[in-house]
Amino acid sequence: MAKKKRFGKKPGAPPGTLVFTGEKKVDYPYVTRDFYNENDYTHESLKGKELPNDFEGGTTWLDVRGLSDIGLIEQIGKKFDIHPLILEDVLNTNHRPKYEEYEEGIFLVLQSLTATRDKNFQVQSEQVSIFLKDNVVITFQEKEEDVFESIRERLNNAKGRIRTSGPNYLAYALLDNIIDNYFIVLDHLDLELEDLEMEILNDASNTTKSKIYQLKQELLYLRKYISPLRETTAKFLRSDHRLVPEFMKIYLNDVYDHVIQILDMVENQRDLLNGLYDLFLSEISFRMNSVMQVLTVISTIFIPLGFFAGVYGMNFHYIPELNFKYGYFIFWICIISLAAALLYVFKRKKWL
Amino acid sequence: MAKKKRFGKKPGAPPGTLVFTGEKKVDYPYVTRDFYNENDYTHESLKGKELPNDFEGGTTWLDVRGLSDIGLIEQIGKKFDIHPLILEDVLNTNHRPKYEEYEEGIFLVLQSLTATRDKNFQVQSEQVSIFLKDNVVITFQEKEEDVFESIRERLNNAKGRIRTSGPNYLAYALLDNIIDNYFIVLDHLDLELEDLEMEILNDASNTTKSKIYQLKQELLYLRKYISPLRETTAKFLRSDHRLVPEFMKIYLNDVYDHVIQILDMVENQRDLLNGLYDLFLSEISFRMNSVMQVLTVISTIFIPLGFFAGVYGMNFHYIPELNFKYGYFIFWICIISLAAALLYVFKRKKWL
Amino acid sequence: MAKKKRFGKKPGAPPGTLVFTGEKKVDYPYVTRDFYNENDYTHESLKGKELPNDFEGGTTWLDVRGLSDIGLIEQIGKKFDIHPLILEDVLNTNHRPKYEEYEEGIFLVLQSLTATRDKNFQVQSEQVSIFLKDNVVITFQEKEEDVFESIRERLNNAKGRIRTSGPNYLAYALLDNIIDNYFIVLDHLDLELEDLEMEILNDASNTTKSKIYQLKQELLYLRKYISPLRETTAKFLRSDHRLVPEFMKIYLNDVYDHVIQILDMVENQRDLLNGLYDLFLSEISFRMNSVMQVLTVISTIFIPLGFFAGVYGMNFHYIPELNFKYGYFIFWICIISLAAALLYVFKRKKWL
Amino acid sequence: MAKKKRFGKKPGAPPGTLVFTGEKKVDYPYVTRDFYNENDYTHESLKGKELPNDFEGGTTWLDVRGLSDIGLIEQIGKKFDIHPLILEDVLNTNHRPKYEEYEEGIFLVLQSLTATRDKNFQVQSEQVSIFLKDNVVITFQEKEEDVFESIRERLNNAKGRIRTSGPNYLAYALLDNIIDNYFIVLDHLDLELEDLEMEILNDASNTTKSKIYQLKQELLYLRKYISPLRETTAKFLRSDHRLVPEFMKIYLNDVYDHVIQILDMVENQRDLLNGLYDLFLSEISFRMNSVMQVLTVISTIFIPLGFFAGVYGMNFHYIPELNFKYGYFIFWICIISLAAALLYVFKRKKWL
Amino acid sequence: MAKKKRFGKKPGAPPGTLVFTGEKKVDYPYVTRDFYNENDYTHESLKGKELPNDFEGGTTWLDVRGLSDIGLIEQIGKKFDIHPLILEDVLNTNHRPKYEEYEEGIFLVLQSLTATRDKNFQVQSEQVSIFLKDNVVITFQEKEEDVFESIRERLNNAKGRIRTSGPNYLAYALLDNIIDNYFIVLDHLDLELEDLEMEILNDASNTTKSKIYQLKQELLYLRKYISPLRETTAKFLRSDHRLVPEFMKIYLNDVYDHVIQILDMVENQRDLLNGLYDLFLSEISFRMNSVMQVLTVISTIFIPLGFFAGVYGMNFHYIPELNFKYGYFIFWICIISLAAALLYVFKRKKWL
Repeated sequence: MAKKKRFGKKPGAPPGTLVFTGEKKVDYPYVTRDFYNENDYTHESLKGKELPNDFEGGTTWLDVRGLSDIGLIEQIGKKFDIHPLILEDVLNTNHRPKYEEYEEGIFLVLQSLTATRDKNFQVQSEQVSIFLKDNVVITFQEKEEDVFESIRERLNNAKGRIRTSGPNYLAYALLDNIIDNYFIVLDHLDLELEDLEMEILNDASNTTKSKIYQLKQELLYLRKYISPLRETTAKFLRSDHRLVPEFMKIYLNDVYDHVIQILDMVENQRDLLNGLYDLFLSEISFRMNSVMQVLTVISTIFIPLGFFAGVYGMNFHYIPELNFKYGYFIFWICIISLAAALLYVFKRKKWL
Repeated sequence: MAKKKRFGKKPGAPPGTLVFTGEKKVDYPYVTRDFYNENDYTHESLKGKELPNDFEGGTTWLDVRGLSDIGLIEQIGKKFDIHPLILEDVLNTNHRPKYEEYEEGIFLVLQSLTATRDKNFQVQSEQVSIFLKDNVVITFQEKEEDVFESIRERLNNAKGRIRTSGPNYLAYALLDNIIDNYFIVLDHLDLELEDLEMEILNDASNTTKSKIYQLKQELLYLRKYISPLRETTAKFLRSDHRLVPEFMKIYLNDVYDHVIQILDMVENQRDLLNGLYDLFLSEISFRMNSVMQVLTVISTIFIPLGFFAGVYGMNFHYIPELNFKYGYFIFWICIISLAAALLYVFKRKKWL
Repeated sequence: MAKKKRFGKKPGAPPGTLVFTGEKKVDYPYVTRDFYNENDYTHESLKGKELPNDFEGGTTWLDVRGLSDIGLIEQIGKKFDIHPLILEDVLNTNHRPKYEEYEEGIFLVLQSLTATRDKNFQVQSEQVSIFLKDNVVITFQEKEEDVFESIRERLNNAKGRIRTSGPNYLAYALLDNIIDNYFIVLDHLDLELEDLEMEILNDASNTTKSKIYQLKQELLYLRKYISPLRETTAKFLRSDHRLVPEFMKIYLNDVYDHVIQILDMVENQRDLLNGLYDLFLSEISFRMNSVMQVLTVISTIFIPLGFFAGVYGMNFHYIPELNFKYGYFIFWICIISLAAALLYVFKRKKWL
Repeated sequence: MAKKKRFGKKPGAPPGTLVFTGEKKVDYPYVTRDFYNENDYTHESLKGKELPNDFEGGTTWLDVRGLSDIGLIEQIGKKFDIHPLILEDVLNTNHRPKYEEYEEGIFLVLQSLTATRDKNFQVQSEQVSIFLKDNVVITFQEKEEDVFESIRERLNNAKGRIRTSGPNYLAYALLDNIIDNYFIVLDHLDLELEDLEMEILNDASNTTKSKIYQLKQELLYLRKYISPLRETTAKFLRSDHRLVPEFMKIYLNDVYDHVIQILDMVENQRDLLNGLYDLFLSEISFRMNSVMQVLTVISTIFIPLGFFAGVYGMNFHYIPELNFKYGYFIFWICIISLAAALLYVFKRKKWL
Repeated sequence: MAKKKRFGKKPGAPPGTLVFTGEKKVDYPYVTRDFYNENDYTHESLKGKELPNDFEGGTTWLDVRGLSDIGLIEQIGKKFDIHPLILEDVLNTNHRPKYEEYEEGIFLVLQSLTATRDKNFQVQSEQVSIFLKDNVVITFQEKEEDVFESIRERLNNAKGRIRTSGPNYLAYALLDNIIDNYFIVLDHLDLELEDLEMEILNDASNTTKSKIYQLKQELLYLRKYISPLRETTAKFLRSDHRLVPEFMKIYLNDVYDHVIQILDMVENQRDLLNGLYDLFLSEISFRMNSVMQVLTVISTIFIPLGFFAGVYGMNFHYIPELNFKYGYFIFWICIISLAAALLYVFKRKKWL
């Protein structure tokens, strides 16, 4: 689980006070501009340049990677008429998924998730905010790495609906891209759970316990960002905003469908993990108990034997067995028979 | 539980990209065509033939078994005007049950379930997609075996409503057939649970634990495919699409009823299994504890005896008992009386 | 719990295929006809007779006890215009409670419950189906015993509303009768739970565990048939069918009220039983632990004593104590003092 | 928890059959009549008198304490036109809270709760039924003690709204009075839970377990009567019956508010009690385990010592140590050092 | 957790009876008056002065800190036309969050939370009531410390909307301020949970148990005051009262959003804490079990050794080994080999 991001705004500060709550992941924000219509596609970095002013004749996609330059964010906010409360949400990088529509446009916050499985299973999240206006899509990414590379490729390829369908289709494609990544995270988690099951059944140890605990935490983390998605995408799907035309519904319905499937999978994995935890507990207790049982059986055999040895160590004046010719050997025979009998009884009762 | 099928589409790929996610269960798909009206019924394999063009004068049922030939699927999609997003769902063989209606027709995805009880109880699932149009029903089955044999028999028999009632009744019959199979799976599970109860009460062992765990997994798997059925069939039942005429309602209501009953049964079995798990845990811990108790009782008897033997092995110059004539025999009498007294006390306290 | 009844219909068989799923409880069905109006009441057995044709001038109640004669059921179905799907529900004797209304009449399925407490608490269920038409009430009982004897008495007594209020009031009276029986079952269960509490607090043993388990099963069984009653009676109460006139509402509301109370009681008993199970578990573990503790305390006292006896059994050339005059007696005094001291410490620490 | 009251009506008996289900708490019912308007207030016992006939010019409050005289109840029912089904509810003293409105009036059933904390925490319930008509309020109390003394005082004081606001305000005041008593019961329970927490942390014993179990039962009992109150008071609040005028809404809203708060408190206490139970379990198991650990440590130290004593009790012809001059003393030094070393290790590992 | 405040009103007392239920936190209430409009801002203490009469030309904010002077509260109630039932809620300092609107104004009760982490994590609550009228906002704080200092600063700064937007914006700012403080409490709790996780994994002890228990209590306490906030703020947001104009919606929506996020966080922390408790339990039981196992292994090794020593202490006339020249040394070699072999076996089986 990534470090928890603390709440940034000082209590009582006026609403819309902009504070960046993430770690300073990028030194200077990386702003790019993609412009396309049916015929053209241009991609340029806006580093050191002014923000564009002309948005006619096609769709403009402004992508801001890195949120540490609050001045730039404010400048974009003013230029595109974004309410300060929305900018506050963009900068509060621990925000739960949210869909909101305004007169001027549609605003979406999501967490893009990736998972690594080097040593432990770990989920990383990066907040992505999408602001959709009439000719423009503005995206804010928390880190420098580009989540949306494949979208740029599709734009460049000039094939498919994406070049002909305007900013709402682009926003859908971005959303779909993020949701598709969730399946990969959950597939990784499935593999992790399979490994865990193997480990529990074959070689449960004390470290397994903290592994299960850590997976539980990761699942809590996942659910926190995934469970509000149902409502978020449902609101998008059922919207009658002018930026969500009828032809989009079938695509948004597909996204909604995927979200439902993801939620099912997460619930399923939670149940699986709980099942694994129960299995681990009973495995461990079963194993410990059988160890204790074996040890106790050994003691239980030797304590009576010790008593008999003690008997013949007694100093009574007259102990007839001591004078038997082969007394000592008879003793050993009795002792070994007794031990064997006890062993046999314990074996048959499956105590050993 | 069958191997988990991974999500196939590359994230960011355009929607409607067709990828088959199952194992390649069939080398070449097996396509059949059933055509019937009140008077005629013909069944033919379309292997190596063109797809039919004429659908007048009766109901045509096109059944595709095996999904590995993506070209064929695309061809069918184009011919019957099926949206690529639907085809994507057909090929993603891990899909949750779903009902959707479009201007052109009605689309249903279901999982047909079967269970085996050779060594362990195992559920196999096969995704079945049903596409219902005005004169045509198209079904996609994941594997080569025919789930719908009994339907073909009923068509052939020329009796009952099925020959006279058009494609919507056929779609209902297919759906009903799949749902009926669930009862058989759940009956198998009931038997399995009864056996498990016997095993736990008579002969609970370590393998019982993994059996319970595995049954829990299978139930999770079952619930995953069964719980969305309520919504799916309810949508079908309450639809006012032109392909769901009034006379169908009583039949669809019957299906809905069965689904509710199945959901009840699954919940019931889940509770039963949880009850069995609790029973197993307390059975095992009870058994282990009583073993430990018996072993401890044995030690508790012999340790004092050992002490007394030790006492008369001491080398004090004057130990009067050692010189008693029948000292050794008196010792044995005392020791045996003591042991008997302890045994009696422990028995009466039900510790043994 | 009664034997589970398996699902009868072969998958893929046409809807409305009649198969009796219960055990053959009656060799030949027992059909009676009660006819009454304000002035008259006649009761006759229809064994070997034709079904009646004239239903004018009063209310006719046809009661079929035993469902094994499928031909008879079909004949009744045709005569009274009952849809084959309803007859299928009548014969599937494991059906969950259900209310359905059709143009021709109202159909109700219920489970009549009785409980025995001979050795174990056991619930028996018998499916009762009620079909209400304009002048006729048809009831199907699974077994030969008459659940509705007291209703017949009330009809015979010629007092009260029942003789003057037509078939809907009769249907209500039948329903009310079945629901009233639930209170008796739950009262039996209450007594059983009280006994169980006594047993756990005074004399918890291994058999208690399977008793609790069995009661849990019975409660699951009860809930399965009781929980759908809320919806069933609510639908009846809120119906605006011509067979549910306004004056019936106060009576149906009373039934609904009883059902809510029964559901409350069942939930309450489930919580009670869970509480008893927790109590049993901690009682048992507490008891076992204290046994082990007592046994361990005994060993813990005698092992050091054994060591000291061993010391004076050593063969060192010079052990001064061995030559003391009263060495042996001093040894005993020390040993007994030590044992007493340990006992005192353990008692004071409440370990014994 | 008070003795459970069984269901009284014989199954199949006609609806409205009056059977008193409580214990016969009062020999003869105690009926009083309060009459008041803005100017006057009279209170009289109706014992041996006729029921009043004139209800004009003020509000009449008829209070029946004790329900064993069914004849009287029936007489009141006839006089005030109360449906037999309502009277059945009045007499069934185990009824869940309920609000119902009829053309003629409004009917409320509630359980008035009190708690004692002498030895154990115990909740007593007394069913109170309130029937509100245009000029009359009729109340039925199960026992002779007067729940409503403070209301009578307020009526007598001639201050406040109560004398000027008619029967609906009186009904509200009675309801409010009962609900206020719940806070006192819950405050008692809070104190009980605080005591229990102390006991668990300082002196958990076997009796604590049954105390917790008993509190759980009492809470189940409380919730049974409290949880339906939300619906009951909400129905009263949202009613548009002529007996619930607009000015009452603010008062009923206040009552509803209190009920919500009570429900919150009960849920909270349930969670607290569950937390205490977990604490108790881990406290007990922690304590038992540490006892066993200490005992085992003692054995673990003395068993090796015993072995060494045994070694020098052996009869080998040549054991050099036995002939050492200070052999015996060296033995003791070694033994004590060994014991001290073991003790030190165990202490440092925190095993002791 | 702060001391629980008991319910104050005597049952049966008339509604609106004012009783202060908190501890007497302030000797005499501290009343201040802030008056502002676009141009001016004045702040004055009203101690010893009359309540103001003129509220024209700007917004008046009356802040009462300390609730022990019931006379003053009643005076304010009369002057500003506040219903006695509202004043009752103001004084009952244990009230759950609530939003209510009346013809004359809007009433809000909230709990302002702060947390300390000196020794244990502790949440303190202070009830804040806000009454919003056309030109006036009246706030009641339970204690003398000012929760709203930062708001006064913003008023003084003459910047931002707050000075120009009237009393509803002020009420929003107060509400927002309280909600923002919740994030700080939850951040503290997050840190506490992180520390606890460390402690459990590294150094779980008996005190950890009561720490977890106490945190559970604090979370229960938090949830009690936080969970009704969703409904409270939703009612405010969706209100169409004249005091909630359209421009407020975006701000109230932001508050609602924060509340949802807080509820998510609290649920998340509850799950985390439950996970930690499970981890603690298995950590402790794992640790205890391994200690017992090590101890038992030691006994299991020495008990057989003791037996062999006992054997050669026996007094049989003829024990050949005793006469071996190096018998004693051979004995030691055998004994040490046996011990080593047992140790090796136990090590390899991971029992030690």
